[in-house]
Amino acid sequence: MYHLIYWPGAPGRGEFIRLALEEAGAEYTDTAHEEGGVKTVLSLLDENFTGDTSGPPPFAPPILEHENLRISQTPNILLYLAPRLGLAPSGDALYHVHSLALTALDGLSNEAHDTHHPIATELYYEDQRDESQRRAESYRTHRLPKFLSYFERVLQPQATRGHPFLYGDTLTYADLVLFQALDGLKFAFPRALARLETSARYPHVFALYEAVKNRPRIARYLASERRQKYSQGLYRHYPELDDAE
Amino acid sequence: MYHLIYWPGAPGRGEFIRLALEEAGAEYTDTAHEEGGVKTVLSLLDENFTGDTSGPPPFAPPILEHENLRISQTPNILLYLAPRLGLAPSGDALYHVHSLALTALDGLSNEAHDTHHPIATELYYEDQRDESQRRAESYRTHRLPKFLSYFERVLQPQATRGHPFLYGDTLTYADLVLFQALDGLKFAFPRALARLETSARYPHVFALYEAVKNRPRIARYLASERRQKYSQGLYRHYPELDDAE
Repeated sequence: MYHLIYWPGAPGRGEFIRLALEEAGAEYTDTAHEEGGVKTVLSLLDENFTGDTSGPPPFAPPILEHENLRISQTPNILLYLAPRLGLAPSGDALYHVHSLALTALDGLSNEAHDTHHPIATELYYEDQRDESQRRAESYRTHRLPKFLSYFERVLQPQATRGHPFLYGDTLTYADLVLFQALDGLKFAFPRALARLETSARYPHVFALYEAVKNRPRIARYLASERRQKYSQGLYRHYPELDDAE
Repeated sequence: MYHLIYWPGAPGRGEFIRLALEEAGAEYTDTAHEEGGVKTVLSLLDENFTGDTSGPPPFAPPILEHENLRISQTPNILLYLAPRLGLAPSGDALYHVHSLALTALDGLSNEAHDTHHPIATELYYEDQRDESQRRAESYRTHRLPKFLSYFERVLQPQATRGHPFLYGDTLTYADLVLFQALDGLKFAFPRALARLETSARYPHVFALYEAVKNRPRIARYLASERRQKYSQGLYRHYPELDDAE
């Protein structure tokens, strides 16, 4: 049994972990759906908590507890889970999959967050709206196409071999990360994503999105109560940050 | 023999890899010191390069080649190297070390970069100077103390046990990452770092910095021609972004 510790209220970074657990059909608990869940998160982030036999204190959620281990940091948790859940190849190929996941997390998750908080995470969006507009424009016109081009370049030879996924012959957690990042971006920047999708420059990227979305366990999860709605989290929709109408 | 592929001209993200190789006394080549090194980097980033038997194309340097493998992404390369270089514990403890390294890279490297490029990586600093000043102020007064407090909290119980490093009884690559990040920050924000060091709120963080700096192989490396000077890279010194005099 796995235990995910993450804020309730939006999919956030916890979602990258949830999708891995859901795709594998793993049993897990999730503080986002538990009474007192916020308190559990806060207790692990308390400035007096210096860690215990489970390891050092976490800096931030998502946090995973499994058996006697407690670990944090999204890519680190995915790295731990993937071999256990059958979502990564063994041996050196794992490093290929991991680099793809890290690139998707950097460019399509962390950078997407910074479009609405380019100046200071401790300030409200409204206190950095002008800077957000500049950053979001750069993101939509430079960074996002650059990352999509990269993943298209990775996927194109895979498609030639008859595989819709980023690496090897089967789905890996890197595919789940890319799916979730695209899904969050579609919520945050619907007009920009529609433009990029209809440009037909990234056909394999958007085909991967559909292929993951339609996997039976993922489809059931997305339709369930367990899938939270986007809100004021990692991916946010501010119309003024999207393409002009 | 390891091959590091990274831009010449500044330590940059390549430095996290170099310090691991240097601390272990590993043999390696480094495009930063090779004629034609830039060309080697560019050939791997070419938009027509879709990967080969060594793996998918890298998104960005640092890139490591070793035997028949080519991998990218700083934390991924460290993860690959650490067990081979004796810089990480085996088993589940590796995930503890890795989360500490990821937190240092996020908060003290990626966020430090964003202080001089808060709006757009494709623009010059001079085109985002005002936003940089706002972001750097937030960084120096909120984020940086938050990360230093976190690492102090991790190190304090370690010190009680008589160990100056972040995890367990020996140096790991997380210590090297924290050292290098602090070194870069000292270059970028000398006044802020002096203020934080003399505040005596983070004694174990700065003691770790000295402990790593004085390790024989690290000290020899830092004094060598192989250690590049800071410049217009990841860590940049703009006096207007530092504490006021």
